[in-house]
Formats: sequence, structure tokens, C-alpha cells
Amino acid sequence: MTKETPAKVDMDTIVSLCRRRGFIFPSSEIYGGLSSCWDYGPLGVELKRNVKEAWWRAMVQERDDIVGLDSSILMHPKVWEASGHLERMVDPLVECKNCHLRWRQDELKGDRCPSCGGELTPARMFNVMFKTFMGPVEEEANIVYLRPETAQGMFVNFQNILSTTRKRLPFGIAQTGKAFRNEITVGTFIFRSREFEQMEIEYFVKPGTDEPWYQYWLEARLDWYVKLGIKREHLHLREHRQDELAHYARACSDVEYQFPMGWAELEGIANRGDFDLTQHAKASGKGLAYFDEDTKESIVPYVIEPSAGVDRSVLAFLCDAYDEEPDKDEKRVVLRFHPALAPIKVAVLPLSRREPLVKRAKEIHADLRQCWVTSYDDAQSIGRRYRRQDEIGTPYCVTIDFQSLEDNQVTIRERDSMNQIRIPTAVLKQTLTAKLAGEDLFTLPPGGQVWKRGE
Amino acid sequence: MTKETPAKVDMDTIVSLCRRRGFIFPSSEIYGGLSSCWDYGPLGVELKRNVKEAWWRAMVQERDDIVGLDSSILMHPKVWEASGHLERMVDPLVECKNCHLRWRQDELKGDRCPSCGGELTPARMFNVMFKTFMGPVEEEANIVYLRPETAQGMFVNFQNILSTTRKRLPFGIAQTGKAFRNEITVGTFIFRSREFEQMEIEYFVKPGTDEPWYQYWLEARLDWYVKLGIKREHLHLREHRQDELAHYARACSDVEYQFPMGWAELEGIANRGDFDLTQHAKASGKGLAYFDEDTKESIVPYVIEPSAGVDRSVLAFLCDAYDEEPDKDEKRVVLRFHPALAPIKVAVLPLSRREPLVKRAKEIHADLRQCWVTSYDDAQSIGRRYRRQDEIGTPYCVTIDFQSLEDNQVTIRERDSMNQIRIPTAVLKQTLTAKLAGEDLFTLPPGGQVWKRGE
Repeated sequence: MTKETPAKVDMDTIVSLCRRRGFIFPSSEIYGGLSSCWDYGPLGVELKRNVKEAWWRAMVQERDDIVGLDSSILMHPKVWEASGHLERMVDPLVECKNCHLRWRQDELKGDRCPSCGGELTPARMFNVMFKTFMGPVEEEANIVYLRPETAQGMFVNFQNILSTTRKRLPFGIAQTGKAFRNEITVGTFIFRSREFEQMEIEYFVKPGTDEPWYQYWLEARLDWYVKLGIKREHLHLREHRQDELAHYARACSDVEYQFPMGWAELEGIANRGDFDLTQHAKASGKGLAYFDEDTKESIVPYVIEPSAGVDRSVLAFLCDAYDEEPDKDEKRVVLRFHPALAPIKVAVLPLSRREPLVKRAKEIHADLRQCWVTSYDDAQSIGRRYRRQDEIGTPYCVTIDFQSLEDNQVTIRERDSMNQIRIPTAVLKQTLTAKLAGEDLFTLPPGGQVWKRGE
Repeated sequence: MTKETPAKVDMDTIVSLCRRRGFIFPSSEIYGGLSSCWDYGPLGVELKRNVKEAWWRAMVQERDDIVGLDSSILMHPKVWEASGHLERMVDPLVECKNCHLRWRQDELKGDRCPSCGGELTPARMFNVMFKTFMGPVEEEANIVYLRPETAQGMFVNFQNILSTTRKRLPFGIAQTGKAFRNEITVGTFIFRSREFEQMEIEYFVKPGTDEPWYQYWLEARLDWYVKLGIKREHLHLREHRQDELAHYARACSDVEYQFPMGWAELEGIANRGDFDLTQHAKASGKGLAYFDEDTKESIVPYVIEPSAGVDRSVLAFLCDAYDEEPDKDEKRVVLRFHPALAPIKVAVLPLSRREPLVKRAKEIHADLRQCWVTSYDDAQSIGRRYRRQDEIGTPYCVTIDFQSLEDNQVTIRERDSMNQIRIPTAVLKQTLTAKLAGEDLFTLPPGGQVWKRGE
């Protein structure tokens, strides 16, 4: 039933659906919003949690070679000196002498103000790190920065991790968390915002094994998106040209997704060599080497860094899940989320608001809620309720009708096929468990019945 | 076996254990640390995740009346004007004219500098919000603040939540997230830090029902800590005196825990009346009222706010779980975490590093890792490995010995009692599932055997 290629969706449709159903709101909206900051509503927060959880499970908990970290957003300013962010994370800005708007020089087409045609000043370099002051005195000595990436927290903890976990190469450190960049040019919706969340891995390897590990991570990360439901043909790897590479990078590729506004980066995977550990060892005077038990030598590992954006992943999962199909008078809008990502796994829908139906439906709901994020909906016709659940991507609806009170059976309705099965309530939990884990809907438990759509 | 009252632990012991085993490190440690910021290491990040997850499950997912939110850290500056934070979140600071150290006036005992005895300036008010600039120009108009609490994100989204979820009173909004306060006086370890994480609920009720709901939340929140293993006698409620109450608060109580440094706040539960919604409605010009379908009137709900600190909860769970008992020559240190909070649920320990034992142990480990956060440890004697797992709070160890290869049975060793049972590998997963859910260790599956400690 699932179409091979979904209806092309435009960004306005996604933004509007997100706003209307409570996925994503503009930050501080009652005050006119705050440029490029966003709040995740009741469904959005569950979707984002599920994306991060799927990443953490696959990258940390299900692997022997990666451990987690949660380092602070405020870090010692020397970190950014050593990493090169203070010197290099700069944009060239010009200002219009007439209207005083500022522009990124590298994005200007002509040499006059795009807004008023005024004359522009020469470019000045502007650091995109947000700075603030720690302690009561606003002076140079107290400047700290909001981290522009989570990565540096992992490099500066390299020895702490080594000594507490006794990991051997190759091994990785992973973390999710907020990062901040005071971008001049912000992006579409949640694609590029000034406050954003990352999922980053620093994977340390022996020098000389870096190239195969880099290739390994390109495949592993691409697979992760595909396993969670993004269509393979909407993803590709784009290798950076030599002139695009950061000076320390030995290689870098982006996992790109075909967004409504075009192909754009979901994740960057870089072979950073030994740049980061070497820089921090130099700047801190602390040894950040690894003692190789086999060769009895100290080495500085190379690092492969798969660095993904949480918000842009959420956006890609939303866009890719979006589907429309004609349905009688109106169209059916459905988010075909992978069950692991769906904000709500199961909706419980009593066919009427009359007792004792409601009592029974609430009992079943309370029972299911122990296992999954669920929803109880008794407002309006059953058809409209199915459509509401389709639009937010709920994989299964459980309908309780008056017959259920007599035969103790309920109906499960599947989002993607709209097929229905009727099964004994006693096997409801195990059936949903199997279905949410991806088993075929029509592997029926004993005593079950199937209706295909239209029968 | 569990002692009624644990060995009193001092903070140094906890800090040292956290550092040594990879729970918590000082931020940017290789650069000398950053005052009052901390990084959670491989075990700490799992413990903190588990605390937040237990809260989210109990407060959001298992309830019909609370929905989640994840609002941004940077918010429109008008939010802090309306909320009163700009005006009131201030500390009175004095400066020593001699040594220039600054002090909180309200914490000074005398009228001369505690450091050098110098003369002090008159007090100046200092706002504890961190400020930064959004956009390229560092000017007044671009000042934004790092939120000092997550709460305001919930108030400003009140109408968004209402319109997208169609909730009826009473209902709540919940969120976890980072907050920042530029405190002059920072606290012990992770108890009071400048960057910290909160778990907050804004629970909206009809005016007049606020008193019973306030009482309800006092009990509900106290229960939550007890259910997750904190001893009831180490918790109490401390009601604020009238002269301690914020001007808008109708009532407030702290859930306090008996930390090594004394009783201190884990969570504040306040009846805030309609202060917040009224302030934001006034400042934004947007209606933040609720239409009561029963009375056909618009009302401004009252709000009960249970506001908990994630980091101090983590610290309380660590302190309360800590136990020491004499064990032959040395003492046994054990963290008696509730299974839901334990960073690692199951450790797999092969009795030797010889094949085919290792192959079998790794198969079992790979299988268990699908279900839980696990650890594989084959270094040193089995006794030392048990001790290592005890010290990080792993509830169960699974030991594979040469006999296991013949009879296909394994040994489960329980952290708290140190009792062991031997069971068929075929029922290992279901046995661990039951045990981690709190079933009695000695409800044996068919074919199992028990050894009590010392037999």
C-alpha cells in the first residue's frame, strides 16, 4: 500500500502541519518569536526524543566500542583557542553605510547593499560563537562561550574516558546535546537555527587504519537513516572537494537528504587525523596519547567524526514520512513514521461515549499505557479519529465497540494499509508488541480475523 | 541483607568514586576546570538519562493529564521582563576596596572583607541571568539571556498547547532541560552549579481547586523519590514560612534530602496562583485564558509547579545508594541503585579467557545487549569483577563457566544479597526481565538452583 515515491511535499505544508498538530512552534511566539529558535510541542518532543534514543541505542548501547558522555555547554575558553574556533569560526561581514544592514560578504552577489543599493564597508571578521560572562564582572577575563559543537567536550575528556573505561583502540565517545552558533544567515525552519542539537561521535583509531574506518562510518551512518525509514533514493553521500576541506581534515563527506528546498546536509563524517588531540595536548600541557599494548609505544590516535544534526534529522524524518492520498472527497494525510520514531504508538478509540464502553476502553488504555506512549480519543466520528491519528503518524489504532463487551475482542487498524484485524483482548499487548517490532500484520494470533481495506 | 540505615557517606567519598569510575568529571579538566561546571562520564550519563527517563515516564507518558514540551534555551528578552526575572533575579553584591573580591552582602557575617579585612563598597544589584548577544552587533537591542529556568517556556506556550492538544483543566505541561544561573556562591559538587538541568511541571487547575492539587503534588513528588529507592527517612517536606515566599506564591514547600552536608532542596513545589499567565497576557497582549465549557466563562487557571533539579537528584540517588560493608580483608563498596536507575543492568563475566568459553560468553552478551545496557568484563579474578560491578551498582552479574558449555546453564549473582542462582540459559532473558522488574530473586524458573551466600 505504501507508495514507492511519496507525494513531493513543500516546506510550507510541513511547517503548517507541525504548527497545527503541536510538533513545532516558533520560540516565544506570543512575543513575536525569536529569530531562528524553535520549541518542540507535545508530539515534537516525543519525535525528537525517539530520534535521539534510536541513535543512542544503536551507537552506544548496542555496541561494545562506544561509550557515552554528557559534557557541559559552557567550557573553559582555552578549549576554543586550542581547537581553532576562536581564530577560524568567523564570517566576513560588511555593513551598508546607508541602511546599516549587515551581510555576509561571501554570500553577496554584487558590491552594493542588496536591500537599498547603498555603499558597503570593507569586511570585518565576526566570530559566530555566542559569548557571555561567568561571574559578576563583565570583563575580558570572564568571557566564556556557548559551545558551537559538542565535539570538543569529547576530546578534552579523552584521558578521563581512557582511564575510567580501560577501552582499547578502536573505540569511540558519543554525545547528544545543545550547541549554539550566532549565524548571520539562518536557514529554513529547523534546518539551520542558532540554537540546535547535535549527535556526535568521536571514533579513535590507530593511524593507518583511518581510511577503512572512515569508509565504515560512511556506510554505517547511511544505513542508520535507511533502517529508520528514510528512502535510500532520498539520501546520498557527497564527498568534499580538496578545496572545501578544513585544513586539518584528511577527508570529509556529507550525508545529504533531498529536502523540499533541495539536497542538504544531515550529517558530516570527517577524518580529522590527530589534529584535535594534538592541539589540546599542546595547549594544556597534558599528555593525550594512547599506550599501545601491542607495540609498547605511545601514539596519538586518529579520529573519525560522524556529526549529525538532531533537528535536521527530525525534519528529514518528517518530510520523508509525509504522504497524501486521495480519499473520497478529501485527501488523506499520513505520516508514515517508522514505529520506533512515531510519537504515539497506539491510540485507543471507543466507538461511542456511552457506558460501559468507556469504562472498558479506559481500562484497556491504562493497560497499554504501561508499555507505550498512547493516546485516548473519543471526540467525533471514528473516521475522523483515524485521520487525526494518520496525520500524526500513529501506527496502530485499537477500536473498542459494543461487540467487544460481549466477545472480549477488539479491532486493530493499521495506519499504512488501513487494514483491520479483530483479535481477543487477551492477546492485544503481545500482538501490538510484535507488530511494533515489525512483524507482518497478518500473522494472526489464535482466534483473530482480518478485514482488508474495502472488504 | 540490605541494611536499614546505610553507612553515612561523606561528600569526598562520593566525589572520588564518581571521578574514579567515570560518573562525573570536572568540566574542561585538562585546562584546570571551569568553576562549577561538570561533565557526566560513561556511567554518569546513563544514570542521568535513567533519572530523567523515570521522571518522563511517570510524569508524562503514564498520565493522561500531562503533555511534554522542549522549548529553547534562548528566549525573547520580553519573557524575562514579564516574568519578573530581569527586575528580581538579583543578588546584592559588595566589593572589597582593597583586594577587589566580590561577596554576596546577604551572606556576609561582618562588614569587612572576609578575605583580607578590607573595606567594602555599598551593595550593587547583580542579575544572575547569563546574557549574550544574538546577531552580529553587540548592542542593547540584541541582548538575549540564557534561561534561568525552563518554566517560562511552558507559560508562553500555554495557548499553543491548549489549541493543539485540546486538553481540559486540570492538565499539565512538563519539560526537562538545561538552565543557567550566574551564581556568585556555587555549591558542593553538582548540588549547585551555574549550568544545571531541571525537570519541571506546570500543572494548571481551576482557581479554588489549587489547595488540594498543591497537596496532591507534595505527596506525588515525594512518592516518586521513594519509589526509585530513596529511603523515606532521608526525605522531608519543608514548608516555606510566609516571609520566605515569593510575592506571587500562595504556598511553597521544598522536598529536602539529607545530603552529607545536611538537609537541602531537591525540588520546590509552589502554588503560583495566576501570576505567570496574567503577567504574560499583560506583557504580550495575547489572551492566555481558558474557556471553561461547564460555566461558559473564560478563566485564568492557577498553576502548581513541581520543579526538580536533575543534577541534585542524581547526587541524592548516588548518596542514598552508597553502602559499605566489611568483607574479609577489605570493605565491599556497593551502590544499591534501584534497577531502573542503575547505569548498567547486567554484566556478563566469563570465568576464564579460554575458548570456547569466551565465544559462548560473547554470544550471551550480544543477546542480552539487545534488551539492556550491559557490560562485558573478563579482566582479573571473578571476585574482583563482582566488586567492580557492585561499586557501580550493577544489579545482576551473569557468570559463564566451563560447566555452562556442558549443561547450558549460567549463574546469576545478585548485587544486594550476593546470592547466586543457576538457571538454564534458555530462560536467562525472561529471568532477568522479571528480576529487573522487581520480582523475588528466589522465584525460580523450572530447572533452576539457588545458593545463598556462604553456602
